Amino acid sequence: MDIGFIGLGNMGHGMAANLIKAGHRLTVYNRSPGKADALVRLGATAAGNVAEACRADVVFTMLSDDRAVEAVAFGEDGIVASLPPGATHVSSSTISVALSERLAAAHAEAGHRYAAAPVLGRPEAAAAAKLFVIAAGAPQVVQPLLSLFDAIGQRTFVVSDRPHIANLVKLSGNFLIASAIESLGEAVALVAKAGVDKQQYVELLTSTTFAAPVYQIYGGLIARDEFEPAGFAATLGLKDVRLVLSAAEQLQVPLPVASLLRDRLLTLVATGGGQLDWSALATLAERDAGALASKASDHSA
Amino acid sequence: MDIGFIGLGNMGHGMAANLIKAGHRLTVYNRSPGKADALVRLGATAAGNVAEACRADVVFTMLSDDRAVEAVAFGEDGIVASLPPGATHVSSSTISVALSERLAAAHAEAGHRYAAAPVLGRPEAAAAAKLFVIAAGAPQVVQPLLSLFDAIGQRTFVVSDRPHIANLVKLSGNFLIASAIESLGEAVALVAKAGVDKQQYVELLTSTTFAAPVYQIYGGLIARDEFEPAGFAATLGLKDVRLVLSAAEQLQVPLPVASLLRDRLLTLVATGGGQLDWSALATLAERDAGALASKASDHSA
Amino acid sequence: MDIGFIGLGNMGHGMAANLIKAGHRLTVYNRSPGKADALVRLGATAAGNVAEACRADVVFTMLSDDRAVEAVAFGEDGIVASLPPGATHVSSSTISVALSERLAAAHAEAGHRYAAAPVLGRPEAAAAAKLFVIAAGAPQVVQPLLSLFDAIGQRTFVVSDRPHIANLVKLSGNFLIASAIESLGEAVALVAKAGVDKQQYVELLTSTTFAAPVYQIYGGLIARDEFEPAGFAATLGLKDVRLVLSAAEQLQVPLPVASLLRDRLLTLVATGGGQLDWSALATLAERDAGALASKASDHSA
Amino acid sequence: MDIGFIGLGNMGHGMAANLIKAGHRLTVYNRSPGKADALVRLGATAAGNVAEACRADVVFTMLSDDRAVEAVAFGEDGIVASLPPGATHVSSSTISVALSERLAAAHAEAGHRYAAAPVLGRPEAAAAAKLFVIAAGAPQVVQPLLSLFDAIGQRTFVVSDRPHIANLVKLSGNFLIASAIESLGEAVALVAKAGVDKQQYVELLTSTTFAAPVYQIYGGLIARDEFEPAGFAATLGLKDVRLVLSAAEQLQVPLPVASLLRDRLLTLVATGGGQLDWSALATLAERDAGALASKASDHSA
Repeated sequence: MDIGFIGLGNMGHGMAANLIKAGHRLTVYNRSPGKADALVRLGATAAGNVAEACRADVVFTMLSDDRAVEAVAFGEDGIVASLPPGATHVSSSTISVALSERLAAAHAEAGHRYAAAPVLGRPEAAAAAKLFVIAAGAPQVVQPLLSLFDAIGQRTFVVSDRPHIANLVKLSGNFLIASAIESLGEAVALVAKAGVDKQQYVELLTSTTFAAPVYQIYGGLIARDEFEPAGFAATLGLKDVRLVLSAAEQLQVPLPVASLLRDRLLTLVATGGGQLDWSALATLAERDAGALASKASDHSA
Repeated sequence: MDIGFIGLGNMGHGMAANLIKAGHRLTVYNRSPGKADALVRLGATAAGNVAEACRADVVFTMLSDDRAVEAVAFGEDGIVASLPPGATHVSSSTISVALSERLAAAHAEAGHRYAAAPVLGRPEAAAAAKLFVIAAGAPQVVQPLLSLFDAIGQRTFVVSDRPHIANLVKLSGNFLIASAIESLGEAVALVAKAGVDKQQYVELLTSTTFAAPVYQIYGGLIARDEFEPAGFAATLGLKDVRLVLSAAEQLQVPLPVASLLRDRLLTLVATGGGQLDWSALATLAERDAGALASKASDHSA
Repeated sequence: MDIGFIGLGNMGHGMAANLIKAGHRLTVYNRSPGKADALVRLGATAAGNVAEACRADVVFTMLSDDRAVEAVAFGEDGIVASLPPGATHVSSSTISVALSERLAAAHAEAGHRYAAAPVLGRPEAAAAAKLFVIAAGAPQVVQPLLSLFDAIGQRTFVVSDRPHIANLVKLSGNFLIASAIESLGEAVALVAKAGVDKQQYVELLTSTTFAAPVYQIYGGLIARDEFEPAGFAATLGLKDVRLVLSAAEQLQVPLPVASLLRDRLLTLVATGGGQLDWSALATLAERDAGALASKASDHSA
Repeated sequence: MDIGFIGLGNMGHGMAANLIKAGHRLTVYNRSPGKADALVRLGATAAGNVAEACRADVVFTMLSDDRAVEAVAFGEDGIVASLPPGATHVSSSTISVALSERLAAAHAEAGHRYAAAPVLGRPEAAAAAKLFVIAAGAPQVVQPLLSLFDAIGQRTFVVSDRPHIANLVKLSGNFLIASAIESLGEAVALVAKAGVDKQQYVELLTSTTFAAPVYQIYGGLIARDEFEPAGFAATLGLKDVRLVLSAAEQLQVPLPVASLLRDRLLTLVATGGGQLDWSALATLAERDAGALASKASDHSA
């Protein structure tokens, strides 16, 4: 299949590489051009602009946020203006529900097909074709994409025939991760102040009731106070919690834990921790317990 | 070893049976006497009162709450008054940190040994000797108990030489479970209001990032609205969150998520849901989203 | 002075009337035309559209929300396009900080002057020229407006030379009112469940420590369960709390009480109470206390 | 009337002095004896112990907390053991609802009368007989006390015939004050970060919608960062919020704002601010906004 791929960061690169390995012809594009080189060596064609990447049956976007997706989707030479009639845009970025709805409407008007397919997994999983794909769209749109999703992930969940629902489900997952981090940070602050070894505590939890990747990954970071370099920065975490709250407000669903997370992430960012991994939320619990009196208690200090 | 065992509910019964199977001589006691019969058939001796169960090297208590433990520990014929000098009291109940400290002091004064060894696991795990034991106490007290813990569990974590720390760790685990339930309930309310199938959503989460027992068990209950009979009643959940908050206040550690959980569990109890499983917290998220308009929105209705 | 006045609702009507009484020549405009009649009888000229109302030295806008202000400010025949160079736009609506900044930039580019002057007070205060005016803008812009503010209010506070700061201060005041309502609702739910008479309780508070208009007005409504007709609807309250949170996020200031208010107002709206006065927040505290078991516990029921 | 008065701190001293001025015969007692001297000069008799102060028709207690009241009420020479049959104990301290119920039961059993009469007002109001008295008790108990309450206060509110309800009402008032402080602190942090002068902001609020003593007093302290010496220390505020939450849990009334206040006060105490005035809650809002980066951000630093 002829596939355009826009956005070649840590995640997009691995996904594009796996589509090439599965035998597809890829035209790849990234705003900063050096990103395409390794894929070109694998057989991809480098596009000089978004419009060139749109001469395809399917174009994927895998970008960092709403703004980046808007920049490539709309405007004179954007995806909506450039994609051939009948072709499909697959949006894999973690974007707002509102933008996904806007993309669906714009593509419908332009005679395109549109599906949302955000993914779960980190860069290593993207490289190893071990992502989980959360897909949504009209059955006739999604059906032909399934083999592409199989090429990039270990399992695909089709959650709705309305594309933006996949974005909602993805955001809800990030909300759940943030809430696990916050709770874990509070629990660690509590037992650590009582003298329990943090590493042993996390080992206990993750060997028993909480033997899930999310507690293992973030528990380890918290126990080791290892917040740099960020796997996922606090500023991005704040953005995602804001997007969840915004979608929830549209649907009129109060989410008290998400509100608390928003305040905590905002505190972390406001006190200078925006570039730390979002698991640095745990430092706030420690700080409020007075346990940081002898450490720097302000990230900007 | 001569072992007394006080408290033969769902958990205590399985633990006592496994101690018998491991070759120990058990004298068992329960306030309501019928509970001892099955254990007597396995070879245990039924004690007529607490004092009789204390004629032992080690006496376990596995009771429902502080009040029940106080009732058997203190008073004229209680454990503190009855246990021989040098014998050990192992408290496996989920009790307050404060009561555990009080027991430690009373036993020290009486020339006894004392360890706290609360467990993780449900009745089936207790029956199958698959519990996790969270033990704490002086090394010379805990060391001789390890083979007993091996008889009832699959793994023992010795977390401190101060007994009450084991109670704190156990309570912190229940706090983490409650927080996972609340977050999950909010996320389910959100996606369900958008039309996503609850069961499929929980299946997606627990197949991926949240593949831990806690999300599988409670996610299933929430997806199926299956809150009766309670595995762990909301009233007990409220009690444990209160105990965590109380211990945290002593240690001066603010726990904002625990405060929110307290309010939610109190709401559940106040509106008639005290006897439901604590995963019924999810009904509050649904109710506040207006999604219960056509169902009974008040548990007492 | 030649003054245009756009927005002749309960508040705008009183303000325009007082400007007429102070001797100014008013050209008034409202989307629904009947609203101008009474002012025409006082001597005003009715404008047929926004542009006509802009043939003035100063044009006031007093509209319900951002959308309404955007509709009259921007676009082909809007205020920005129509106002003569050097004339002043005074925005008295309770709008977002972001929109106020956008208006400031647009007017600067068009060679206009711009000030924000939101007001405190209800329709009766507007009619009686008893409003409080919160003004902000460059000194040379605000100075000539002071006599106009004196005509509509009892006192003017000039809080900054940047117009949007006045909007922030106004929104912060609405946040404080909402928080007084919520706290009062919780306190009333508590003492009422213990059998205290609500009216006597509110009388006690407002005769002593809480002898402020905000507690007197809302305390009375809460004590009498008098939430209809709404003086200020829950949907508007939710909007204002959202605007405060949004401005605070821009400034990186976490506001935990505002987050809680947002959840509570969203709950009220989601469960069918959007058209009730925002003091109906008190019904949520009562509901969560199980005190509404025998009443309708869902506003949509 | 023969009146015993126990507890001669800033509040008790003024109350006792006004009872003397009203013509009553007072026997006064304080644990630290120097406190009685000034009252003796006014005509009071100094008691050498609690029992001596109980040779009276009515004995008042005005002490700092539950512990202090328990110390004088119970035990061999305490009030319950010493008061003559038919005499009345008036408890004016801010104590827990539970202790007030316990006192009521103990006095009933001993053949005494018991009323609760906590007061609103600060030491200057106590000295000037300008307190507000919140009284509760059986009508035949309270009726004869009204002239005494008139001697110490400007107005008496009889809220219930069950004494502990007066304690609940008093605690609810302290909850409302704390919640006004917290909200004000958040609002001030918001507008101050935007460059608004704190003093001018508080002046604006308290000249308009929030013209109540509570906003005037605490707003002034917050605007001037004047948290020492404490009028009411954060540790006492935390205690009172804890008592409100405890009473509310007994009554099954969730109070989300009180939960938030508890976490904030606990944070203030844990980070070294326990001896500051409880209006220092405002420093937390400022700290979380990153506004204290250049100041000491930890009270213990």
